[in-house]
Amino acid sequence: MPSIDVCYSPELLHLYDLKGKAVVAVDILRATSTMVTAFAHGATDIFPVMKLEECQAFAERGCLIAAERDGIKAEGFDLGNSPFAYMNGNVQGKAIAITTTNGTRAIHLSMEAEEIVIGSFLNLQAVTNHLLDLQLDVLVVCAGWKGKFNLEDTLYAGALVERLQHAFSFENDATLASLYLYQTAKQDLVTFLRQSSHVRRLENLEIHKDTEFCLQHDVYSTLPVWKNDRLVDIAAKRELA
Amino acid sequence: MPSIDVCYSPELLHLYDLKGKAVVAVDILRATSTMVTAFAHGATDIFPVMKLEECQAFAERGCLIAAERDGIKAEGFDLGNSPFAYMNGNVQGKAIAITTTNGTRAIHLSMEAEEIVIGSFLNLQAVTNHLLDLQLDVLVVCAGWKGKFNLEDTLYAGALVERLQHAFSFENDATLASLYLYQTAKQDLVTFLRQSSHVRRLENLEIHKDTEFCLQHDVYSTLPVWKNDRLVDIAAKRELA
Repeated sequence: MPSIDVCYSPELLHLYDLKGKAVVAVDILRATSTMVTAFAHGATDIFPVMKLEECQAFAERGCLIAAERDGIKAEGFDLGNSPFAYMNGNVQGKAIAITTTNGTRAIHLSMEAEEIVIGSFLNLQAVTNHLLDLQLDVLVVCAGWKGKFNLEDTLYAGALVERLQHAFSFENDATLASLYLYQTAKQDLVTFLRQSSHVRRLENLEIHKDTEFCLQHDVYSTLPVWKNDRLVDIAAKRELA
Repeated sequence: MPSIDVCYSPELLHLYDLKGKAVVAVDILRATSTMVTAFAHGATDIFPVMKLEECQAFAERGCLIAAERDGIKAEGFDLGNSPFAYMNGNVQGKAIAITTTNGTRAIHLSMEAEEIVIGSFLNLQAVTNHLLDLQLDVLVVCAGWKGKFNLEDTLYAGALVERLQHAFSFENDATLASLYLYQTAKQDLVTFLRQSSHVRRLENLEIHKDTEFCLQHDVYSTLPVWKNDRLVDIAAKRELA
């Protein structure tokens, strides 16, 4: 039986051996939720990058460029980090370069893994099914908040563990704690998270709507996976095949 | 109102500013529980050190020396890491050098703090009262397990937060998660922790008795605090005064 483990911060990733494992990279508010939404609305490729300048350079390659700083769209960019900005047909058939801090870091530090999958509540069952197929040991890598633990990514890890618990072993405390927290919170994730620091930061920016959207389970069948130098949606490729 | 925050691993300590803060160092199974027990049974000073050789050198200074490796007393030492080994009058009036890995690391990495207090369930109320008196911002530093998150230290953090919640602000997710987990677990901590990885490791070594002992609340009024180069029990000094 493969195992599942949870890493609460990119700052702890050096303690884990990623070789041969499937990493699920998670940044619920909002990087990975937004990436999943972009693919669901027809984006072809996503390039996650750390820096604004790096992101801007992708414009010359014909990409849409997306950047958020302090919760709002950065000047000179096509898109911000709200999933709602990717829904009006504007990303159909396009490649996008997105710069986010926490989420991109989690992805870039996971390059040793056998596979990197992008997780969010929005594509929870798609990721679950894929991990059941893969039969690799799994590490959920929470982006956290500036290196620190955050609740929303942990709750996602717990939701994934709940769905995988009969097919994966978990003998570590981070996985248990994630599952307990999710089971405490799941009846009303929005209210539960309203106390969390990051959600309160976002609420100050009046993006309740984004938070509520990102906490919905199983909205999309999108399955973004890292290939070579970018994310692609392997669920879309399956549909085309 | 001062604040309380929780750091889940010494590996994350660099993300926190310790200046002017009170750190509560925690390694429930078993370093800090054992230190509290040793002071309660008359130990005068405790020197926490990282390495066996360093610890052995303290024997020449007239100290008892204590060391555990892989859950049992190391050869050539007076004491192991079980709290029961410190109860039969043998530590009365003695200084002790103890080597433990996770717990000592948490203490040594916290030297920038204004005050370092040793926390355990056994002296929970004593630490609570002391923090209420101090009125400093508090950071609970969980020793964790080889740098990773563990449940027993997190549950202690939650217990402390529960007692301090009306006098301290907490606007971070690690503190909230600790409190939720403690509230889920507190009716039966022993059963709850039986699923945890570290407790199962210890149970393999047949030290159920230690685990059950270390989870008892408010057994001692001991208050070990770092002074200069060692831990001393400031509660004992108050009683003498």
